Amino acid sequence: MTSQDARTSENGREFGWHKDYVTGSRPDLKVPVRRVHLTNGQDVTLYDTSGPYTDPDIATDVRRGLAPLRENWIIGRGDTEEYAGRPVRPEDDGIKHTSPRGGLRNLDAVFPGRPRQPRRGRGGQAVTQLAYARRGEITEEMEYVALREGVSAETVREEIAAGRAVLPANVNHPEIEPMIIGKKFLVKVNANIGNSAVTSSIEEEVEKMTWATRWGADTVMDLSTGRNIHTTREWVLRNSPVPIGTVPLYQALEKVDGKAEELTWEIYKDTVIEQAEQGVDYMTVHAGVLLRYVPLTARRKTGIVSRGGSIMAAWCLAHHKESFLYENFEELCEILASYDVTYSLGDGLRPGSIADANDEAQFAELRTLGELNTIAKRHNVQTMIEGPGHVPMHKIKENIDLQQEICEEAPFYTLGPLTTDVAPGYDHITSGIGAAMIAWWGTAMLCYVTPKEHLGLPDRDDVKTGVITYKIAAHAADLAKGHPGAQAWDDALSDARFEFRWEDQFNLALDPDTARAFHDETLPAEPAKTAHFCSMCGPKFCSMKISQDIRRAHGDELAVDPEAGMAQKSREFAEAGNRVYLPVAD
Amino acid sequence: MTSQDARTSENGREFGWHKDYVTGSRPDLKVPVRRVHLTNGQDVTLYDTSGPYTDPDIATDVRRGLAPLRENWIIGRGDTEEYAGRPVRPEDDGIKHTSPRGGLRNLDAVFPGRPRQPRRGRGGQAVTQLAYARRGEITEEMEYVALREGVSAETVREEIAAGRAVLPANVNHPEIEPMIIGKKFLVKVNANIGNSAVTSSIEEEVEKMTWATRWGADTVMDLSTGRNIHTTREWVLRNSPVPIGTVPLYQALEKVDGKAEELTWEIYKDTVIEQAEQGVDYMTVHAGVLLRYVPLTARRKTGIVSRGGSIMAAWCLAHHKESFLYENFEELCEILASYDVTYSLGDGLRPGSIADANDEAQFAELRTLGELNTIAKRHNVQTMIEGPGHVPMHKIKENIDLQQEICEEAPFYTLGPLTTDVAPGYDHITSGIGAAMIAWWGTAMLCYVTPKEHLGLPDRDDVKTGVITYKIAAHAADLAKGHPGAQAWDDALSDARFEFRWEDQFNLALDPDTARAFHDETLPAEPAKTAHFCSMCGPKFCSMKISQDIRRAHGDELAVDPEAGMAQKSREFAEAGNRVYLPVAD
Repeated sequence: MTSQDARTSENGREFGWHKDYVTGSRPDLKVPVRRVHLTNGQDVTLYDTSGPYTDPDIATDVRRGLAPLRENWIIGRGDTEEYAGRPVRPEDDGIKHTSPRGGLRNLDAVFPGRPRQPRRGRGGQAVTQLAYARRGEITEEMEYVALREGVSAETVREEIAAGRAVLPANVNHPEIEPMIIGKKFLVKVNANIGNSAVTSSIEEEVEKMTWATRWGADTVMDLSTGRNIHTTREWVLRNSPVPIGTVPLYQALEKVDGKAEELTWEIYKDTVIEQAEQGVDYMTVHAGVLLRYVPLTARRKTGIVSRGGSIMAAWCLAHHKESFLYENFEELCEILASYDVTYSLGDGLRPGSIADANDEAQFAELRTLGELNTIAKRHNVQTMIEGPGHVPMHKIKENIDLQQEICEEAPFYTLGPLTTDVAPGYDHITSGIGAAMIAWWGTAMLCYVTPKEHLGLPDRDDVKTGVITYKIAAHAADLAKGHPGAQAWDDALSDARFEFRWEDQFNLALDPDTARAFHDETLPAEPAKTAHFCSMCGPKFCSMKISQDIRRAHGDELAVDPEAGMAQKSREFAEAGNRVYLPVAD
Repeated sequence: MTSQDARTSENGREFGWHKDYVTGSRPDLKVPVRRVHLTNGQDVTLYDTSGPYTDPDIATDVRRGLAPLRENWIIGRGDTEEYAGRPVRPEDDGIKHTSPRGGLRNLDAVFPGRPRQPRRGRGGQAVTQLAYARRGEITEEMEYVALREGVSAETVREEIAAGRAVLPANVNHPEIEPMIIGKKFLVKVNANIGNSAVTSSIEEEVEKMTWATRWGADTVMDLSTGRNIHTTREWVLRNSPVPIGTVPLYQALEKVDGKAEELTWEIYKDTVIEQAEQGVDYMTVHAGVLLRYVPLTARRKTGIVSRGGSIMAAWCLAHHKESFLYENFEELCEILASYDVTYSLGDGLRPGSIADANDEAQFAELRTLGELNTIAKRHNVQTMIEGPGHVPMHKIKENIDLQQEICEEAPFYTLGPLTTDVAPGYDHITSGIGAAMIAWWGTAMLCYVTPKEHLGLPDRDDVKTGVITYKIAAHAADLAKGHPGAQAWDDALSDARFEFRWEDQFNLALDPDTARAFHDETLPAEPAKTAHFCSMCGPKFCSMKISQDIRRAHGDELAVDPEAGMAQKSREFAEAGNRVYLPVAD
């Protein structure tokens, strides 16, 4: 055991947690887990998204990137080929030949890791997990996620084949630890990063990505819109243990100086190939924004709030025809299929306020996304559907129910939803409420919202707060869905709490650092870590201590089998109508 | 207008917010509101719990206390009398005659405000809002809350008379600004304060109370358990604009050195009268913990987690009979009725973990609370019922449905519920999720949970975070319940957001300080306050800016009446089955 945080408790037992692996059918199929060692000798195994960074036996170097874990699996399938690939151009990083500043703002920002050639399906064939699943093949990636989720590999294959789950894994992103997104599996959380024209740097973005996965992000979307987009993405991909998503439209728009109407299918297609060759695992495509839907947003309180949606709406109106995304959707499917890039069909017309929730524009687009989902499946492209947004609690369920019906149960991937508009600065909470509910009802992945939503770019602390808030929503949903094994974590922590095993309570917490720090604020002394009370109530008023005293003092009475003994009396009492002042039964 | 935060925008309009009042049928019936003045000339009026502290025209002094707003109303009813009252004893502050340290730890802590005699119902009669409502009388307090909630006074009277709402207002707490708790009204939030044997001082508690109401706490519970309990409570009551709740059992236990089995009805009754004379508006009473229910907790994961519940369970087992609270409940009703102290019937057996949710112990006690509710009503005592606790999302609704059925729709007052046990340090969020849901389904008041829950005593920042989180949950529920006027707030903020009226967005925010600070972190410059974008996406990618450009550029097309024009085309399209590649309709 390579202990991360091992100490020895009074009883001499080593406790803490460490990174461990569950090995599958082949030695290079090792699924990471977080093993928590309790002071009572028990172990609790938790899902781990943090990648090699939390394994002291693995030396990582962001300038070299992570080891290509899946490379042999991909090559082994023998259905892909390396090729020269598209040359990287200055404009990929937003630099114009005409630019007086020419060259990268920061030359050594170019990723220095091993040179690589892109790979794609031989003869343009679909090399997607969906294609394999439909052919009845269980890939290494499927076995990997089966071990990770504690289900059978056949269940994974079935869910993917039916289109109810996606396993985002571009053949050009061999570094990822495979994960699955579907309602039968653990609810997943996505964290957005990305620099903007206004602020932040490449190094910051890579750091935000590893930081987000450290706290539990299952996927990361790079939404960069400023300069160095291509290079930033390269650094993020080569160092990411989780699937990376993007919105290619953002980079394409940079290539036409932000003039939406100047966008063309050729520029967009070239950008998609550029990103597919780099290894982007899933792409948000706003192909559902139809010309005829735009007027439906005219009377909205907040119009169109999706960046991609507003860009496509502007394009449609400028050219007064359907978008190049919609018109060329079949060709786009063929491209994505040859790299196994997963679609995230964007909800460009999602509501941006409580007033606009569940309106005609939103649901009209959803119906079109259902059509596009069917087409994508025909091309063996894995597909998930994006959802809102701002929705009051009583209108949330209609969103997931309609999406599941219209999109043949394709995974739903929602942003929140935010349940009120009045709390800027706390939208991780306004949306965490809606996220937990919609995930309970079937949403497969939640896109986090940070405290900075609507106000500014999230910093390191905002990213952590957003991820933790959404891990709470996701786990609360796993519990409500009765996901097998979900409650074992709660039970272990509650046992530790009731037995005053403070260190175990900290180590089992979603955020051990914060739990320990908050406890120590009021009771720093080491003895307090084993005290049978905390500073909230103090010794005399600790209900759990009194509960334990009761059990010690009245063991006999309480030991009476509840089914046979006192519980029976209690039932008689209940049957007697719980009349008050009934003579005590003893 | 006495502006709190008035500035002048470019267009010369004054904007910001200020404290204002709506006057009722008599000059001394003035309901406070927060008026937000927008830069577009509109006003938005918000509910205000902050008391005189936010009115620059009123000089407040914590050493003198607030003006006795309700005194003339109470005297005017002519059904109460002043009397000598119970002498305050050293042990009321936890000081034993035998104590070598004798006297108050901190003498000038004794409240220096105006001397007052306690008041009670003449001849011990019930002087409760419930009694008045049942007699068809609309009190000043009822008219006050009617104005505050924007409903008719008759509606308020009906809800109180039916026992579906409570208006906590002890005749000895004339300082409060009346408020109402019931499912037909805005969802309310309670904040707990209180020193413990381990930490904190009188001044801190008074400061926490005013701080909590500043951010929206509708009531405050003083859960002090250390020394100076009596004096701390006096300072809090005399300075509180909101109803104050307590758990008399905590102080009674201090009087017997924390030995639960030594508690007696006499000591408890004396403590209740002591607190009623001071002006406590509602009291948590754990009379539902019956001897026969205790064994039902023996196999629980976390036993009994309510302090009061564990104390009463210990007492019942030690004496092997029903508690003095249960046996003397009718006499307790007579006492509370003569001061108009409202019952908060405590759920001493609430679940303390996901594993224990909705178990037999919890629901057996709830049935007994239903019986006690009926008895309390017979004595004209206003009554609400406390609820859990730790409950996974799929088990929440059963709690409110069962409580409403068993307790004849008496107001439900819940702690959270927490939807998972795994996130100590973030339980304001794990519980905010459950709180929003249970409030949507009918809970009338939510007891906040702070980030320090399970770990330590909340400090000033934790209190603010807890209150804000719960105001979000409460407002999200008001929206989902379709409370008249609730959405106007969201609409005003979303309009400001869409129109880039940043200052209006800040001033309308639940927490203007945080919203402004977060925005300024990345875009501090004053011009940014009127910029048509923020640092999240930058100018080129601001969807709202693009939306507006679209409306400007394509006004004619978009102006087409959606009902008649494009929407019709959109419907035809839908009826045509949304076939992809359908020729563009134009």
